[in-house]
Amino acid sequence: MTLRFGLIGTGRIGQVHAANIAGGDETSLAWIADPFVDGARRVAARFGGTVTDDAEELLTSGEIDAVLVASPTPTHVDLIARSVELGLPVLCEKPIDLDIARVDALRETVRTGGVPVALGFNRRFDPAFASVRARVAAGEVGGLEQLTIMSRDPAAPPAAYIAVSGGIFRDMTIHDFDMARFFLPDIVEVSATGTAAFDDGAREHGDFDTAVVTLRAASGALVTIINSRHSAVGYDQRLEAFGPAGSLSVANAPTSLVSLSTADAVEAKPPYQDFFLERYARAYVDELREFVKLARGEASTSPSFEDGRAALVLADAAQRSASERTVVAVDLTA
Amino acid sequence: MTLRFGLIGTGRIGQVHAANIAGGDETSLAWIADPFVDGARRVAARFGGTVTDDAEELLTSGEIDAVLVASPTPTHVDLIARSVELGLPVLCEKPIDLDIARVDALRETVRTGGVPVALGFNRRFDPAFASVRARVAAGEVGGLEQLTIMSRDPAAPPAAYIAVSGGIFRDMTIHDFDMARFFLPDIVEVSATGTAAFDDGAREHGDFDTAVVTLRAASGALVTIINSRHSAVGYDQRLEAFGPAGSLSVANAPTSLVSLSTADAVEAKPPYQDFFLERYARAYVDELREFVKLARGEASTSPSFEDGRAALVLADAAQRSASERTVVAVDLTA
Amino acid sequence: MTLRFGLIGTGRIGQVHAANIAGGDETSLAWIADPFVDGARRVAARFGGTVTDDAEELLTSGEIDAVLVASPTPTHVDLIARSVELGLPVLCEKPIDLDIARVDALRETVRTGGVPVALGFNRRFDPAFASVRARVAAGEVGGLEQLTIMSRDPAAPPAAYIAVSGGIFRDMTIHDFDMARFFLPDIVEVSATGTAAFDDGAREHGDFDTAVVTLRAASGALVTIINSRHSAVGYDQRLEAFGPAGSLSVANAPTSLVSLSTADAVEAKPPYQDFFLERYARAYVDELREFVKLARGEASTSPSFEDGRAALVLADAAQRSASERTVVAVDLTA
Amino acid sequence: MTLRFGLIGTGRIGQVHAANIAGGDETSLAWIADPFVDGARRVAARFGGTVTDDAEELLTSGEIDAVLVASPTPTHVDLIARSVELGLPVLCEKPIDLDIARVDALRETVRTGGVPVALGFNRRFDPAFASVRARVAAGEVGGLEQLTIMSRDPAAPPAAYIAVSGGIFRDMTIHDFDMARFFLPDIVEVSATGTAAFDDGAREHGDFDTAVVTLRAASGALVTIINSRHSAVGYDQRLEAFGPAGSLSVANAPTSLVSLSTADAVEAKPPYQDFFLERYARAYVDELREFVKLARGEASTSPSFEDGRAALVLADAAQRSASERTVVAVDLTA
Repeated sequence: MTLRFGLIGTGRIGQVHAANIAGGDETSLAWIADPFVDGARRVAARFGGTVTDDAEELLTSGEIDAVLVASPTPTHVDLIARSVELGLPVLCEKPIDLDIARVDALRETVRTGGVPVALGFNRRFDPAFASVRARVAAGEVGGLEQLTIMSRDPAAPPAAYIAVSGGIFRDMTIHDFDMARFFLPDIVEVSATGTAAFDDGAREHGDFDTAVVTLRAASGALVTIINSRHSAVGYDQRLEAFGPAGSLSVANAPTSLVSLSTADAVEAKPPYQDFFLERYARAYVDELREFVKLARGEASTSPSFEDGRAALVLADAAQRSASERTVVAVDLTA
Repeated sequence: MTLRFGLIGTGRIGQVHAANIAGGDETSLAWIADPFVDGARRVAARFGGTVTDDAEELLTSGEIDAVLVASPTPTHVDLIARSVELGLPVLCEKPIDLDIARVDALRETVRTGGVPVALGFNRRFDPAFASVRARVAAGEVGGLEQLTIMSRDPAAPPAAYIAVSGGIFRDMTIHDFDMARFFLPDIVEVSATGTAAFDDGAREHGDFDTAVVTLRAASGALVTIINSRHSAVGYDQRLEAFGPAGSLSVANAPTSLVSLSTADAVEAKPPYQDFFLERYARAYVDELREFVKLARGEASTSPSFEDGRAALVLADAAQRSASERTVVAVDLTA
Repeated sequence: MTLRFGLIGTGRIGQVHAANIAGGDETSLAWIADPFVDGARRVAARFGGTVTDDAEELLTSGEIDAVLVASPTPTHVDLIARSVELGLPVLCEKPIDLDIARVDALRETVRTGGVPVALGFNRRFDPAFASVRARVAAGEVGGLEQLTIMSRDPAAPPAAYIAVSGGIFRDMTIHDFDMARFFLPDIVEVSATGTAAFDDGAREHGDFDTAVVTLRAASGALVTIINSRHSAVGYDQRLEAFGPAGSLSVANAPTSLVSLSTADAVEAKPPYQDFFLERYARAYVDELREFVKLARGEASTSPSFEDGRAALVLADAAQRSASERTVVAVDLTA
Repeated sequence: MTLRFGLIGTGRIGQVHAANIAGGDETSLAWIADPFVDGARRVAARFGGTVTDDAEELLTSGEIDAVLVASPTPTHVDLIARSVELGLPVLCEKPIDLDIARVDALRETVRTGGVPVALGFNRRFDPAFASVRARVAAGEVGGLEQLTIMSRDPAAPPAAYIAVSGGIFRDMTIHDFDMARFFLPDIVEVSATGTAAFDDGAREHGDFDTAVVTLRAASGALVTIINSRHSAVGYDQRLEAFGPAGSLSVANAPTSLVSLSTADAVEAKPPYQDFFLERYARAYVDELREFVKLARGEASTSPSFEDGRAALVLADAAQRSASERTVVAVDLTA
């Protein structure tokens, strides 16, 4: 049976989900809500669905089986709460909120609500990262000792966005915190260093554009996250999982099979994929597919509300570590 | 205005075209013909269109604007002839025919028919090969002196297919002949060497499973084509364009961004893409898009009937060269 | 005129220097001292030179123009001091000492002694690292924002060595601290995290076998050092210099040009060079050549006593950071 | 016991051999002959040895145990003959001669002389090519079906050299013919195509600067040799051995571990090694070592006089094939 979705939010990422929902064999796009109702109308024109400017109307329409929340971060907590209340499985874009207190206030509701809640950590569904995790689990490198994540965005966002982003750790590194936990769920310590090396927006708002975070897992394994808000070569998304038997690495995504060799330089390739929607196109499809299983009560690997909370706890710890120049112990099991 | 297609033939490649026609913004799948009418029905169930077991009914339905011929090779000449007669632009899978006499008999009809006829040399539309050609034309390696084409299929076809294939040069190398002509249209000499190294089907039918062809272009440039009917690593499709300033190379298509490094071997990657439909998925889409332009009388780079004929002339010359152990001069300008 | 060397210490690294001194156009091996006089004799048998078991005899022989100190670390301070006293230029293996107090006690002597003192930070002379530094200085990546150093030894040393090594930061990371300062001399902050993931020797002696260090430069640039005491793939020595215009990377040193592609894996290469003497063979030659210039009073890029001290200050800070779980500010300009 | 060498010829390649003989543990440079006696003197000044302008004096000195012939090609036949007559093992640079008749005239003498005669096909001793051959022999790719040799020199020689070179096949491709026979000794057919694409010297003297040769082995395996007299990227020396289980490939020799990634291009490396003496430095050392075994009557893999003759037979066949546009059968077992 087709799972009928209500989509809330029709920005860049909402449009990706709309296309995937409409294109999926087991999913359909039933309702679309956005206060900027023209955005919702454009999506409906392309993929079908009833349009509203009021999310509540969508949630109570009685015509949807699941909710996809792709609206701005400050709306997430209320929309998750209301979906749970109405018994509607919900897939919510990250982060749950920028304020851990609001997340914690919702925690009990979700834990006891009996309604599936998933977080949109799309990178877990990237074929390369998923393959490395599976192969690490299969023992190809032995016990994991070091995980290195290189994660650099093509270009810094506008200063206005920086101002409300919650800072680099809650906005950008949060994906890397979840990736770290994808391999090593139980992180016990966070040490972060940041700098504003090039971006006036970051400087203006007391934020960083460049950061390095070290995490320690309960197992003793160390994770290193290297971030920058810009990358001339395109989206820089690499990972290395290292153990006693060797390492598994994820390279950047090429845009071409062509290389040029001349007297100046050999084996020169065009820059990497430049945009997260392109780099993770397949991941968004698989993320949705996995959520469908979750919504149906089947076994699923969808990242949970707790995963969303854990990433925020790590981001908060990193923010404190970087600001106060200290090392912060965390307890994700609490 | 949407171009309404009649699709003739619903085998593996016909299904690819059906999906692309149905998925295109400017194209629709109006009619589907296949003597095995169940195949046509299955395609229609998925992508729409009226079904028939009789291509003539499709051609004369008055409801199509263009024809896509994906039926067995022996039907191509008649279907092209009839399409031209009816004024319907036609995109025909390669080869036109295995018999150059039949092709030549059709040649005048096509030349004077005033109806667009394109051949399905999909590799011209592969982004990597197209990019190399454009960059060679832009002078990145200087004047082209050597073109090397490595082209190996994942696995040999069944003996029954070999029996009616026309031989490796007409069946498999024909793509490489066209690729050679994509860079160097005026080929003047062919020297081919073949062997049956491993395939009983090839041996049985006096065919080769392994071949090397050297072509000389009118410019003096040399082309080398290296073929095998099998390849353990997946579909092997490489090219190097060499000139005084260096070279442009096309690598095989990876299936993953992951590599494994251990004490046994480092930087080991999973095998390459294994199937031509996967390797050239994008090329088939772009091939169709370009044909739409041709059908509409716009400027187009679709390979022509003459390109289809030239590839067959080269295949015949290679067959003669390999069989008689001689070097064969050809005149594609005649 | 040939520079006559007195070599003190004929262990593994002493033998490398002996061969390079004997093989150099401008250098000769005049005296060789080692309390294990058989070692000195073996070196003399191969490369010439007068043998003694007493370094003082060598230093006061009147037959040497320069001293190369390759004896155990605890002897370094005294041998440098005595060489300076005697007016003999000295190239001393790292570290100067494990105790910063002893280094500081020697500091004034060296500063005012007017005698060239160089430290054996061989990696500065590796063609790859030297090239990246020169190209960064030439602006190829823009202003340096992030430096990432992957540095893993093939295998952990014996527990007995660990016991007297001064710990991973003073023994192993010290090379990486100097490499960091090769690019960014003015480091102002150190944050280190260590773990004993696999090595019983490390565990036994309260040392780490796995570590991550983040350094902040006065410019705001961030350095990440990733260490392990073992590496299944061979000596892992990589570096990435990142700036607004892109990055320059140093790959591991291959042992072969051969790769194997099969149905299991493609492009698989043999493991990397496994041993630091092999990996840095050329660096040791160039290090000596540069020291000859220094000894002759010519312009030279040899790392200085101050460079040796700075690396130890960083190692001490890292040790404190890792032990006390805090971030440590340093002032290398003091 | 040390093998005392007489070196005849002190040009570029003679100097390489002089250094290797002088530097070898089991070899010494006893006599050096060159009609340009100043060249011989310069070599003796560096590496020792008695100097003469008369090869006969060297051969009859009674002070040598083996001869290394590095003089111009026209002298080779006589010097081999005289060495055999005097019972002196001889390592002669390729080719034996440009005229197969002169080679054949010497053949019986060598065959019955009981004196070791080796040919200087240095590439057999390159670690990469030797490794691929050993791994093919060990069955890593299954039975060899295709061998592809890319062999391009950095730059065309002067026209004066071309004039006396015997043509590209006897001068340059001869190395590739031997490499083909290193894998597949029994070649039965030659098909060659040449063109003068860029070099006035080649055009002037009726020679080719660009060539493709296809060889058929008795096993049915096919060899492709792709040659050019120039290569902007440096010395282009690649090889692929292909069989049912996959392929073993030799890549070009990098000059650096450094790569640059920018918005224009990623993973760009400096050009390859540019000079055959640099590319094959190690091969010349191993070639000499293997010849020492041969000279001592031990088991040895040194290429023989017959290997030298076979390469010339193939070069002659290629010349005829390319000139007369025909395919040439050869019988190397005759």
